[in-house]
Amino acid sequence: MSKKWVYLFREGNASMRDLLGGKGAGVAEMTRSGVPVPPGLTITTEACNAYYENGKQFPEGLWEQVLEGLKDIEKQTGRAFGDPNCPLLVSVRSGAKFSMPGMMDTVLNLGLNEQTLEGLARLTDNPRFAQDAYRRFIQLFGKIVLGVEGDKFEHVMDKAKNVGKRNERLDTDLNEDELADIAKQFKKIIKRDAKIDFPEDPYEQLRMAIGAVFNSWNGRRAIDYRRLNKIPDNLGTAVNVQAMVFGNMGDDSATGVAFTRNPSTGEKNFFGEYLINAQGEDVVAGIRTPQPISKLSEEMPEIYQQFVDIAKKLETHYHDVQDVEFTIERGKLWMLQTRSGKRTGAAAVKIAVDMVHEGLIDKATAVQRVEPGHLDQLLHPMLSPEVREKQKPLTTGLPASPGAATGRVSFDPDEAEELAFTGEKIILVRVETTPEDLHGMAVAQGLLTARGGMTSHAAVVARGMGKPCVAGAGEIHIDYGRQSAKVNSTTIKKGDWITIDGGTGEVYVGRQPTVEPELGGEFGELMSWVDEFRTMGVRANADIPRDAKTARSFGAEGIGLCRTEHMFFEGDRIQAVREMIISDTPEGRRAALAKIEPHQQSDFEGLFREMDGFPVIIRTLDPPLHEFLPHGNNEIRALAEKLGVSFRKVKMRVESLHEANPMLGFRGCRLGIIYPEITEMQARAIFKAAVAVKKEGITVIPKVMIPLVSGVTELQVQAELVHKVAKEVQKESGIKFDYQVGTMIELPRAALMADEIAEVAEFFSFGTNDLTQTTMGLSRDDAGRFLPLYVERKVMPEDPFQTIDQEGVGQLVEMGTSRGRKTRPDLEVGICGEHGGDPASVHFFFKAGLDYVSCSPYRVPIAKLAAAHAALAAKGAEIRKDK
Amino acid sequence: MSKKWVYLFREGNASMRDLLGGKGAGVAEMTRSGVPVPPGLTITTEACNAYYENGKQFPEGLWEQVLEGLKDIEKQTGRAFGDPNCPLLVSVRSGAKFSMPGMMDTVLNLGLNEQTLEGLARLTDNPRFAQDAYRRFIQLFGKIVLGVEGDKFEHVMDKAKNVGKRNERLDTDLNEDELADIAKQFKKIIKRDAKIDFPEDPYEQLRMAIGAVFNSWNGRRAIDYRRLNKIPDNLGTAVNVQAMVFGNMGDDSATGVAFTRNPSTGEKNFFGEYLINAQGEDVVAGIRTPQPISKLSEEMPEIYQQFVDIAKKLETHYHDVQDVEFTIERGKLWMLQTRSGKRTGAAAVKIAVDMVHEGLIDKATAVQRVEPGHLDQLLHPMLSPEVREKQKPLTTGLPASPGAATGRVSFDPDEAEELAFTGEKIILVRVETTPEDLHGMAVAQGLLTARGGMTSHAAVVARGMGKPCVAGAGEIHIDYGRQSAKVNSTTIKKGDWITIDGGTGEVYVGRQPTVEPELGGEFGELMSWVDEFRTMGVRANADIPRDAKTARSFGAEGIGLCRTEHMFFEGDRIQAVREMIISDTPEGRRAALAKIEPHQQSDFEGLFREMDGFPVIIRTLDPPLHEFLPHGNNEIRALAEKLGVSFRKVKMRVESLHEANPMLGFRGCRLGIIYPEITEMQARAIFKAAVAVKKEGITVIPKVMIPLVSGVTELQVQAELVHKVAKEVQKESGIKFDYQVGTMIELPRAALMADEIAEVAEFFSFGTNDLTQTTMGLSRDDAGRFLPLYVERKVMPEDPFQTIDQEGVGQLVEMGTSRGRKTRPDLEVGICGEHGGDPASVHFFFKAGLDYVSCSPYRVPIAKLAAAHAALAAKGAEIRKDK
Repeated sequence: MSKKWVYLFREGNASMRDLLGGKGAGVAEMTRSGVPVPPGLTITTEACNAYYENGKQFPEGLWEQVLEGLKDIEKQTGRAFGDPNCPLLVSVRSGAKFSMPGMMDTVLNLGLNEQTLEGLARLTDNPRFAQDAYRRFIQLFGKIVLGVEGDKFEHVMDKAKNVGKRNERLDTDLNEDELADIAKQFKKIIKRDAKIDFPEDPYEQLRMAIGAVFNSWNGRRAIDYRRLNKIPDNLGTAVNVQAMVFGNMGDDSATGVAFTRNPSTGEKNFFGEYLINAQGEDVVAGIRTPQPISKLSEEMPEIYQQFVDIAKKLETHYHDVQDVEFTIERGKLWMLQTRSGKRTGAAAVKIAVDMVHEGLIDKATAVQRVEPGHLDQLLHPMLSPEVREKQKPLTTGLPASPGAATGRVSFDPDEAEELAFTGEKIILVRVETTPEDLHGMAVAQGLLTARGGMTSHAAVVARGMGKPCVAGAGEIHIDYGRQSAKVNSTTIKKGDWITIDGGTGEVYVGRQPTVEPELGGEFGELMSWVDEFRTMGVRANADIPRDAKTARSFGAEGIGLCRTEHMFFEGDRIQAVREMIISDTPEGRRAALAKIEPHQQSDFEGLFREMDGFPVIIRTLDPPLHEFLPHGNNEIRALAEKLGVSFRKVKMRVESLHEANPMLGFRGCRLGIIYPEITEMQARAIFKAAVAVKKEGITVIPKVMIPLVSGVTELQVQAELVHKVAKEVQKESGIKFDYQVGTMIELPRAALMADEIAEVAEFFSFGTNDLTQTTMGLSRDDAGRFLPLYVERKVMPEDPFQTIDQEGVGQLVEMGTSRGRKTRPDLEVGICGEHGGDPASVHFFFKAGLDYVSCSPYRVPIAKLAAAHAALAAKGAEIRKDK
Repeated sequence: MSKKWVYLFREGNASMRDLLGGKGAGVAEMTRSGVPVPPGLTITTEACNAYYENGKQFPEGLWEQVLEGLKDIEKQTGRAFGDPNCPLLVSVRSGAKFSMPGMMDTVLNLGLNEQTLEGLARLTDNPRFAQDAYRRFIQLFGKIVLGVEGDKFEHVMDKAKNVGKRNERLDTDLNEDELADIAKQFKKIIKRDAKIDFPEDPYEQLRMAIGAVFNSWNGRRAIDYRRLNKIPDNLGTAVNVQAMVFGNMGDDSATGVAFTRNPSTGEKNFFGEYLINAQGEDVVAGIRTPQPISKLSEEMPEIYQQFVDIAKKLETHYHDVQDVEFTIERGKLWMLQTRSGKRTGAAAVKIAVDMVHEGLIDKATAVQRVEPGHLDQLLHPMLSPEVREKQKPLTTGLPASPGAATGRVSFDPDEAEELAFTGEKIILVRVETTPEDLHGMAVAQGLLTARGGMTSHAAVVARGMGKPCVAGAGEIHIDYGRQSAKVNSTTIKKGDWITIDGGTGEVYVGRQPTVEPELGGEFGELMSWVDEFRTMGVRANADIPRDAKTARSFGAEGIGLCRTEHMFFEGDRIQAVREMIISDTPEGRRAALAKIEPHQQSDFEGLFREMDGFPVIIRTLDPPLHEFLPHGNNEIRALAEKLGVSFRKVKMRVESLHEANPMLGFRGCRLGIIYPEITEMQARAIFKAAVAVKKEGITVIPKVMIPLVSGVTELQVQAELVHKVAKEVQKESGIKFDYQVGTMIELPRAALMADEIAEVAEFFSFGTNDLTQTTMGLSRDDAGRFLPLYVERKVMPEDPFQTIDQEGVGQLVEMGTSRGRKTRPDLEVGICGEHGGDPASVHFFFKAGLDYVSCSPYRVPIAKLAAAHAALAAKGAEIRKDK
């Protein structure tokens, strides 16, 4: 007897994903729970593997088992495969263990031919529908199973519809005869290109479709996807063969979709729509207006009740909101699909919290149910809900950077900059953006591009700037010459108001209302659970007291990075900074620094007050000095006059500080080592501030962080200086305080030498921005010219400045951590690069054993959620291991 | 009975370095060989360790053994320690296993006090000498043993000599009474600063001096030196106590120094000088003119013969040229010191080869005897030998970059540039140089600075440029205002001729003759032995056929790096390159590239012909494109006209290619990935060249190297392109050829991912310049502002661009090599950064298991020698292990 290659839906269950694939296990589980699912069978993943082992031939017994299964389906549906009177039609689809792009699309209506077509026309009493179904089947089969170029079919359709001509028509305008003619032409194309006659025998159709699914497992795209996602090649794919049902068999038939809760607000009531005597496509086509689902209770009360019961049962079964598709065929309800419903951030939070209260899920599940992207939506301004109720979007692109923004259209970065200067709100609309557009992007409220993906220049820059962005909205045709854009029939001119929602990708005409995020209630409750499960700390990067306050309000547990140089620019301090830089002598520099010190001290006091009881990590001066100097001759002259020195002297100093590669130049601890007086002033300001707030009863935990260290000696030199100043301040003030001196690990060499560095460093903080730049030899400022193309062409899996490059840079993070802790087992290790706010990176940092991540204040909740997810995943892994 | 802490010189031998230190073992060996050495004793390193274990007290029995040893010395010399009539005086010096800066200096004349002073005066019949010896002893003892600041004694001396006044006098002008008075003042200073009376008791002096040697083992400088050089702290130091002898006891006394062979030319005859009735210092002071050593055969024939016999015996004993110091005291010859004689490069090679022929040493020893620095001297123009015979140098600074150069003095880089343009030969003379002086340095024949060390900006840049440089010639006082410099009483004006020897640090007035290196004869013979012992390959970095020819003549075994972009600048090719860059389309770029292709092909043909039978590694285009574009508006306008495009277009392109950090920007394989047509053209030119020369019967081994790869995908994309072109060319020409595609490992990520990269790469070449820049976050172009100071202050042990940073960057070299070979065991791994020509780095690369190093053609012999040294050292280590 041959192996069991085929399972009827009723024979499987949810635990059989390995054998039946995700989709097969899902329908089996539904069938098993008594939900009315159109009957079907699943060919196992083992059959797929056997097919390859067998030289791409069906293994022994497979076809026989398929025929046997088909008999069962015939019995259940009362129809027969290939029967001209009452034909059974089936869908064939792939279904691997993991959902995988590149695998074969669904073939619908398989079983149709010139004979069964007649039967379908009679059954549905709709010959045009039957003809259209046949035309679609040939098209799908030709393209998907036989590999004929899809464009060739589309070309025939376009011709029939007079596309591009004055008398252009819609698909629905084509009549029965025209469709029959199209089907003939399709067959000719197949004969010509695939070199075979279109198979009229339904069994031959089925055999070929199954083989095509198997073959798609080793298609180029599928292989690439597996390689990229590290999915083993030997999993194989399952094949699902399922009876078709029709919602257009009269007024006792219908079709619809529904969510068990509102996917937009999370409210607990059914949400969806349906159409009587229609097919699923008709709902989408928008020719007839669908009815809200509640109306079904009037039109078909019994079936509605049955549907509600089933849907609720499914929600309870899966412990999550379900997005269900159903068809009513001649008074019988069939559930076609159920899956977790996609939802907005607001809905995700409300649903998760509600379900805990309802006892449906536990807190851990609730926390895991909310995705970081959900919170990201919540933390940005959102489109007011009534907008979506009242109107349809003009078009939808990719949700490239969350938040809603409204403004006047500008197609030109220069103009955008000018208008923004006069106070106008601008949405910059470009075909795609380049680094030359940066000045326009910087002043815009939001960005909209016609081309480019989630990692296009516009998308990357917008996320970096925290601005809403809709990218790759392909329906928009921009005409820079006319300064206008066209979307279908709508024209948008320069200066028109538009509104974009970067969280959904929607674009609306006009000035639409937006709402600020509300973070009370359910959000607060969820975050408290997040904190219960989270084990890794989350701090914020904040440079001034105002940011520190925001950070605390978002739940930051201290400051992971204060960039002291940001204080240098405020008010007239920059004057003293410049004086310091222009000075030739340590004395001159000290005199200038003395003017800055009180300002720094008062800023530090502000930070310490906001962070009462939490650590504050302050980095000593980091950027190259020329960043503080003017560069135009007029400004240089003005500065020279103010300082009372010669133009030539200032000019020469500016020029002498010019660097070929400032990122790798005279910056970081190199400044403090060559000009110790700078570090000295900063340490003094920090410690005097600590003393001042300590007197107020504040608990202050200052940590001085030395940047850009490449070896222990650099750190030692600076640490000694800081300790000296600490002693002096303690002696002068008579007040003792605790503090630490640590370092950033942001150069590959620092990670490699972490064991030695930890002899001096009391804490480490990975500066993953610079560590990524140096490890990959990649300047973040300059990478815009090729990085988007790299990601698009899959030369790199993603932008390494957005999500940490675990394979490469990650090795150094792990190495730095383990080597550092070898020397100093209690070494506190954190990370303060932008990756601290990126969920995938947070997962990695958790696995690498870091004590905390630090990110921008607005991303603190997201980082916390990601940290909780990581902790729960690890716990899950542990539990699995225990079993 | 207590342990043996003290060994008489006659009790030890050369193998006892651990116990007796280097110096102690040396004098013991001489004594043992029957050479007349003033008698003495050595206190063991164990005694030093016991001293520390004993709470800084002499261990039991030590002092008693010293006294006993002293008795033996008294017996041998016929003098008695502390005897006013016939006093024994001794020297006390430290002597660890390894010579170590920071250890205690020698104390001479120990044993003198008010009483023995009289005895010495009588013995030498020279009361002034005795007083001066006493004064010197107090001064040395005060400074070295008692830790009194040396300046305080100098101050007294200066005052006595009227330093700075019109009637300034020399040391030798001080008479007996004045010296006696100075001694009194010295004692007062000691009383005041060291808070003790100067010890008049010779035994107390000795006890204190021994303790001081022990203490100096744990002095700050000694500890730092040990840490830096990884010398264990528990070795301890020995102490040598030796009888003083005097060459100024009358006309039957004398003192002198001699080499057993000519240290300048290597010729086999005695070379040296002596003075009758004098002390060693008198030879140096230059008041009396010393006699050539040959004259001694007339003045003291017997002693001369004894001396010659001893010196020859020592040379035979040590198998090397000896630099000996001797003193004749009342007709008795004493050998004070013998050591390997320092020699010029020419002498080193001749002596090593001669000694092999004489059967004194074997070839391996000869190879080890010649230092890389010796060859470096040989490979540069040298000062003609007669210069040194005829005159003294004006001054001597640090030998910062080898070679002799002569030219007119210029103090101003701008002026230097102008003059060089008119064909003048210039020596640029600066207090110190900065990056702003680079244009002047580039055109000068050589550099001379008054300040800065071996790693100063001038030194580093000069070595990089291969120009002679004398740095830190502190006697030169430069007055930029007057455009002149003063050295003692000599004034040098702008435009004067001077000559510098960067191999010795000497500076001569006038236009001195220089000679080109001769590389035949002994050099050739030595290099053939080098090749016998060497196991690692040595290739050259060469970009054009001319350089390849030079490389072969120096023995390069192939080209390790051909930088194709260097060909882009020659002749009018740059025009086509610019056209390519300005073009918007792949077609436009292809058209421009087609113009460059024949030139590249012909260059490659030239390289292949020169390297017949050897591999040629060709790197695809690497630098950022803006390096090829003009930057001034006028040049941009000219280019626009030539290309027939608008000024605006060219200007915009130039600006769009500007980068914040070009080193980390759009360069390397990133160019070839975004513009595949560039790589395609280069591959085509390489392979067509290979076909063309193959037809001529040349053996051609082309290797295409992809730069700046950070992961395997980048390499894969480029490698596929190269393979495609190779197939095409083989098909078109009908000629097959072997080739390889490999990559540079020059980013930390590439080293970390080397296992994956080696799946595609057929060879690796470490680009240690860029690897150092990225690993340390250090821009070589910009580091001049702080790196010299870093090295000076020991924040870094040395310039990492000169000698590879083994601890940090070296880890990545080792990691990249081992991971690469894990994937591909036969992976060829080399290095083509500038470190390939640095001997210390070559040693490291040998240990890391690299197959070859590649360096500039002129450094090939040096790299070969270093590689042979490394191989011999490893063999030695193996042999030692076997024992």
